[in-house]
Amino acid sequence: MNATPVSNTRVLLASRPSGEPTQENLRLETVSLPTPGGGEVLLRTIYLSLDPYMRGRMNDARSYAAPVEIGAVMEGGTVAEVVESNDPDFSPGDFVLSHLGWQAYGVQPGRFLRKLDPARAPISTAVGVLGMPGFTAYAGLLEIGKPKEGETVAVAAATGPVGSAVGQIAKIKGATTIGIAGGPEKVAYLKELGFDSALDHRTPLFREELKSATPNGIDVYFENVGGAVWDAVRPRLNTYGRVPVCGLVSHYNETALPDGPDRSAQLMSTILTKSLTVRGFIQTEFVRTHYRSFQEDMSGWIRDGKLLYREDIVDGLENAPEAFFGMLTGKNFGKLLIQVGPDPTR
Amino acid sequence: MNATPVSNTRVLLASRPSGEPTQENLRLETVSLPTPGGGEVLLRTIYLSLDPYMRGRMNDARSYAAPVEIGAVMEGGTVAEVVESNDPDFSPGDFVLSHLGWQAYGVQPGRFLRKLDPARAPISTAVGVLGMPGFTAYAGLLEIGKPKEGETVAVAAATGPVGSAVGQIAKIKGATTIGIAGGPEKVAYLKELGFDSALDHRTPLFREELKSATPNGIDVYFENVGGAVWDAVRPRLNTYGRVPVCGLVSHYNETALPDGPDRSAQLMSTILTKSLTVRGFIQTEFVRTHYRSFQEDMSGWIRDGKLLYREDIVDGLENAPEAFFGMLTGKNFGKLLIQVGPDPTR
Repeated sequence: MNATPVSNTRVLLASRPSGEPTQENLRLETVSLPTPGGGEVLLRTIYLSLDPYMRGRMNDARSYAAPVEIGAVMEGGTVAEVVESNDPDFSPGDFVLSHLGWQAYGVQPGRFLRKLDPARAPISTAVGVLGMPGFTAYAGLLEIGKPKEGETVAVAAATGPVGSAVGQIAKIKGATTIGIAGGPEKVAYLKELGFDSALDHRTPLFREELKSATPNGIDVYFENVGGAVWDAVRPRLNTYGRVPVCGLVSHYNETALPDGPDRSAQLMSTILTKSLTVRGFIQTEFVRTHYRSFQEDMSGWIRDGKLLYREDIVDGLENAPEAFFGMLTGKNFGKLLIQVGPDPTR
Repeated sequence: MNATPVSNTRVLLASRPSGEPTQENLRLETVSLPTPGGGEVLLRTIYLSLDPYMRGRMNDARSYAAPVEIGAVMEGGTVAEVVESNDPDFSPGDFVLSHLGWQAYGVQPGRFLRKLDPARAPISTAVGVLGMPGFTAYAGLLEIGKPKEGETVAVAAATGPVGSAVGQIAKIKGATTIGIAGGPEKVAYLKELGFDSALDHRTPLFREELKSATPNGIDVYFENVGGAVWDAVRPRLNTYGRVPVCGLVSHYNETALPDGPDRSAQLMSTILTKSLTVRGFIQTEFVRTHYRSFQEDMSGWIRDGKLLYREDIVDGLENAPEAFFGMLTGKNFGKLLIQVGPDPTR
């Protein structure tokens, strides 16, 4: 058990970024500890998950969900320990999946929490491979991408929590897998993960290498990046190709439409002439129908050593802004987590 | 019966167009009549179907299918009468669905032909509402668009053979239907067809009118046009909207990418944030699985007066080029057919 805390540290949205977010857009502050009301639980954050979708929440525009208000705590999934509980289902010392955002302590109704069993899997995986990013990969690949045995599946940001799961699940399903990442260190790791081809999108030969690596074209491209990788993938897509679109991180900091020519009609024309399926999604769409099978399949694959995952843990909430900015340009290497407080299970 | 013919008239692709096709790109010539070989049938063309996809065949680029070669007869679906037959399944005087292209006579193997029963439906419908265009509407709307009762379905070129069937089938399935066409005469006809709203994309108020006509947004947009209509529809699309893409006629004559800004990433972003399904298709994909149900459903709807169709018949093969060019800019009003020779059933 920890000493009784007296104050809370948190990161607020101070102003909306124009283009790349900076330290000025976020503000660290110390406030008094919140008190749990009826049915509520006081939680201490152990891990804060940093994910690309948070960039969209900083804008005052419709994205997946409502924006974070100016002066409000930045949103985010967390793994936390129960400190004090007014919900009979939770006791101090329990570990829970929660959505406290960027703060060291927080209060949530017990009904919003899911208890975690540290004996089953490391608790950090609840916001990673066994949580939202893993489920995004699982549902998007299997329900939209629908890879068949022998088909070719390509994914970018392939060392990240979504991309690495996409590639490994595709491999388990019998596909040939093409992983794309930035830099030689990440490319080396893609080979450890078992990708059939590992490509560096930063090399000038990337387009040529992608062509050589996909002699039978690409049947499924799991889109989480956009930009130059998508431009290189498009000519390789086969008739009836499927493109689950789960993110476009390379565009999130754009402040205006890029210069022309306008290639939007050309994109529609490619969709038409190749009979492509391009399908945007958020994982929440599939929770009711597929979350249970995801938990079973994914735990099994991890246990059997068929699915590896990598965490990039940065210490201290005060370092969250810098780590977050870096993630938007691919500086993280694996699932990015902020260690906000000690993990008693490690 | 007709007098024994002695010569054949046909239209060849003389050169590939750059932008809008012109008379110089096509050449009318008279040659001697072909002679049917073993298993082959000599056919006299009654109706030649003119369809937007033919513009793609004039280019030397991958589209749906291989391009027409320079000096070859322009491709096209035809309704024809058997003149002479070396296939025991066909006799002179039979009417058949065939693919003779732009010519007055042609030879095809009997196995490529489908016999038509003039008592069942006017033979011209075999290349219209009961043929490829009707099936494009049926399969694309029902298998990709999947309209649910009470949803809103929008379609452009809505007086054309595909669009008019899309709107009427959507109505039969219980959707609210928005028909978009160019000019007051076509808009008036959309009301006759039973569209819930009929909009003229040529009026300056089109965007406003589309907004007013879709208080609950748009769930299915059947894309056969592209351009300004697609730009106006996009902001009205609902989460989980479906966009079957069967054609982009407003772009077929473009010779270069339009000026910027580049809106292709913005399009991907809309697909992402609205969880859209954008799916290109050609009707051939669905023939094996859905052609039979199409024939049954469509014949039934026509018989019951639930589905109307309109033909725009232009007399004489020599007028096919002009009629075809006009179709690409919306000058036709209904399914465009060339009456190449007399129809003994009318």
